[in-house]
Amino acid sequence: MTSTLESLREHLFETSLLESTIAALEWDEHTGMPSEASEYRSQQLAYLSGLVHRRRTDPRIEGWLDELESGLGSHSDHGVDSDGVPAPAVTILRTLRKDFNRSRKLPQSLVEEIAKGTSLGQQAWVKAKDENRYEDFLPYFRRILELRRQEAQCLVEDGQTLYDALLDHYEEGMRVDSLKPILANLRSALVPLVKRASEASRRLPKGVLQGPFELSAQREFSRWVAERIGFDFQRGRLDETVHPFCTTLGPHDHRILTRYTAESFSSGLYGVLHEAGHGMYEQGLDPNWYGTAVGAAASLGIHESQSRLWENMVGMSKEFWVWAHPVAAKHFPQISKRTVDELVGELRRVEPSLIRIEADEVTYNLHILLRFELELEMVSSELDPAELPAAWNAKVEEYLGLVPPDDSSGVLQDVHWSAGLIGYFPTYTLGNIYAAQLFRAADRDLGGLNDKIARGEFEPLVHWLRKRVHRPGRAWTPLQLIRNATGEEVDSKYLIEHLRDRCEALENAGE
Amino acid sequence: MTSTLESLREHLFETSLLESTIAALEWDEHTGMPSEASEYRSQQLAYLSGLVHRRRTDPRIEGWLDELESGLGSHSDHGVDSDGVPAPAVTILRTLRKDFNRSRKLPQSLVEEIAKGTSLGQQAWVKAKDENRYEDFLPYFRRILELRRQEAQCLVEDGQTLYDALLDHYEEGMRVDSLKPILANLRSALVPLVKRASEASRRLPKGVLQGPFELSAQREFSRWVAERIGFDFQRGRLDETVHPFCTTLGPHDHRILTRYTAESFSSGLYGVLHEAGHGMYEQGLDPNWYGTAVGAAASLGIHESQSRLWENMVGMSKEFWVWAHPVAAKHFPQISKRTVDELVGELRRVEPSLIRIEADEVTYNLHILLRFELELEMVSSELDPAELPAAWNAKVEEYLGLVPPDDSSGVLQDVHWSAGLIGYFPTYTLGNIYAAQLFRAADRDLGGLNDKIARGEFEPLVHWLRKRVHRPGRAWTPLQLIRNATGEEVDSKYLIEHLRDRCEALENAGE
Repeated sequence: MTSTLESLREHLFETSLLESTIAALEWDEHTGMPSEASEYRSQQLAYLSGLVHRRRTDPRIEGWLDELESGLGSHSDHGVDSDGVPAPAVTILRTLRKDFNRSRKLPQSLVEEIAKGTSLGQQAWVKAKDENRYEDFLPYFRRILELRRQEAQCLVEDGQTLYDALLDHYEEGMRVDSLKPILANLRSALVPLVKRASEASRRLPKGVLQGPFELSAQREFSRWVAERIGFDFQRGRLDETVHPFCTTLGPHDHRILTRYTAESFSSGLYGVLHEAGHGMYEQGLDPNWYGTAVGAAASLGIHESQSRLWENMVGMSKEFWVWAHPVAAKHFPQISKRTVDELVGELRRVEPSLIRIEADEVTYNLHILLRFELELEMVSSELDPAELPAAWNAKVEEYLGLVPPDDSSGVLQDVHWSAGLIGYFPTYTLGNIYAAQLFRAADRDLGGLNDKIARGEFEPLVHWLRKRVHRPGRAWTPLQLIRNATGEEVDSKYLIEHLRDRCEALENAGE
Repeated sequence: MTSTLESLREHLFETSLLESTIAALEWDEHTGMPSEASEYRSQQLAYLSGLVHRRRTDPRIEGWLDELESGLGSHSDHGVDSDGVPAPAVTILRTLRKDFNRSRKLPQSLVEEIAKGTSLGQQAWVKAKDENRYEDFLPYFRRILELRRQEAQCLVEDGQTLYDALLDHYEEGMRVDSLKPILANLRSALVPLVKRASEASRRLPKGVLQGPFELSAQREFSRWVAERIGFDFQRGRLDETVHPFCTTLGPHDHRILTRYTAESFSSGLYGVLHEAGHGMYEQGLDPNWYGTAVGAAASLGIHESQSRLWENMVGMSKEFWVWAHPVAAKHFPQISKRTVDELVGELRRVEPSLIRIEADEVTYNLHILLRFELELEMVSSELDPAELPAAWNAKVEEYLGLVPPDDSSGVLQDVHWSAGLIGYFPTYTLGNIYAAQLFRAADRDLGGLNDKIARGEFEPLVHWLRKRVHRPGRAWTPLQLIRNATGEEVDSKYLIEHLRDRCEALENAGE
């Protein structure tokens, strides 16, 4: 069995050499590649993707999996290690079988239709958003929805809904019947909270943080923060781009990217905190198993939990600013004139807005919830895409008290649906839910986590996350991982409590 | 034949997708890749190089070449186009046959021994240079020389010397019996010129350009220069690294890299001029034939001619500074205090020195000539590597009037020989010879080239180089290319005249 595992591991590692090469070319594409180079770059990427696809569907893989399976059957001691983590072979077998079953169930013609439909869909979306014409996007979106419903019909298993079949691809093992109550709780708590928090925010003093904020100071300060919280610059770098992201170019090469603007002090910095969270997760995976599920992230939701934990649970805490304020004050004259409380109050301002990616910590999840609810209705055919803008606007008004003036700042704002990403949005809010729950569990295990943060001691938290979240890789489904890390099932109550605290602090600050 | 050519062209283009991916990864490696990422990066590069090797030695290629050849045989109209450039099929056939003959003649075992020997040799060289111990490097170098002599014995054709067989790989069609008289002329002219020029330089005023020169001003000014002379930033970028270089990542993606230091105003700028010359050559190749010899550089020497033409013929001219001085003065207070003549005098200072890469325009070629002469003697077994340091030092004293205090600043200074690059050095001086000859021909064809430069009109020169040097790609050997571009055989007299003018200007300036 060992030699089977080694053959498979080597095959996966060599595939990773190509996949990470693609990541490197994409990173380069977003960090100043000459404009005229795009066409050739896309030819490079297509060629390399073809090589990856051939390796991923190599018929030898199923043979190795069969051998691995029969080997495991006769060795009951291959179960778990001392931390309760399943043996590598178990994880690799589970995840690759999943991928193979998926490809076996999907007709090649459908896969190609989806690729074509989403490619056309994204082009149509760019134009429709630009011209504020949902009706031009509608036929493309209708087609995409239909194709992904067909996909779900191919994949759906006994007891699953169609949406489950889609969701499972982004968040393994998650089901609508578990997710619905978790999110319903969150929604009923959030709607009144947003109201209270925005009223309190309106009572905050105005003009506390006025730009411009020197870009070189932002660069220096953000890098200092990333380094101090634990992002390893021997194994990573920080760059600038238009839409912040994090990417992995190898087991010891993790790159985070942010965007600084002179007007805003917070967008570049919180971009760095968010992406450093993603990057530290990747840096915490087992490099010896790079290229396999053992050394890969558990899910999109778990990934997002790591970014949100550093961005919101840590970065928006008062204690973080108790620690960071003296250094920030040296970089920015505007901050040197403000107390920690003034700064934190300003950064936590809550105000319903139309655009998801600009939303604050409290309103953000309502943006996700309404998308999830609309997706559910569309996948189950209760809602026709022609009715989507009206349904969208109704929910925005219900949850956020706002009326989108047009579809470009409404239903057309996100690229996801045009790219066929249906069942993906919930992972954003799951990330927030996991983050709050993990932070609470870490605090319980470590004791006085906030005091440590106020002293700039991030190492205990990083260490806890390494062990509980990062190191297991994809050994467990996200639900199992949260259970193992926190001792409880996934529950939105910790996020609700956290946001309630934020709200109360705002109310006290405004008084 | 067309479909054969298309098949071959597609094969070569796909190979280029991988080759340029390697170039992208190497560029990244030299522009801030995280330090811990090296090992995995070298695994990526090795894997991709393996794929490239497999494609380059694809047995189908010889079949295509045979078909192409028989097709050409029956079509006498495939000769040349209206500019006298051979048809693509002719060039591709010539160059690929050459490559294939080469690989057929070299036993695989020898290729592997050379790879191993030069890899060990470079490691040994780093250490030996560091510790100033030529004797530790000697056994490795002896082995490398022996292997490359064996290689030459496999490759040598009737009427060639062993050295010819090596030289031909770097400078197609060049022979020792043509090269020797060209370089001998140059040497006899240079030795007295260096003496005169260094005496004149000693009479120049001291402290004309005192650092520090602000790095951000250097960046801005260098970029402005590169853009104005014609380096296309839509199809390229300028970055910083330790050892300046130029690399091509695609038909429209050419990257130049320099290094700025606060103490020196000139090293970063002339690094940019040099690399922009290389980059503009690459930008001038035919992008439609990217990946084939039709869209590739003619030789190392021709490549170097383009960098040296912009660095020295243009960038060191008085007219260049007539144009650039007002802008430079805005960037650097030190320059605003100096006249064009003072500035040019300072930049052209001639002083014999021990290190080739720090040498000025006049002494530089003597560094190359002595290496060429020593290589010749070693390849023909007249000089034993054990005697190399003594022979080196004797030549340095004869040509430059200096005595190296140790081997690290003498025979061990360059990486080339440890990497097996024997027969490579002459291409540096050939580049200078070609540059002077091309510049003179351009001036003859365009009229008043220096006046144009003084007005910042670089476009006519770029256009001339595009047509005469860049666009033909590898259609001709370097000797033919120079003949076609200038109407004369390669001759060092233009370089000698140019350097004599420089010397006279120095003598007049010092008076």
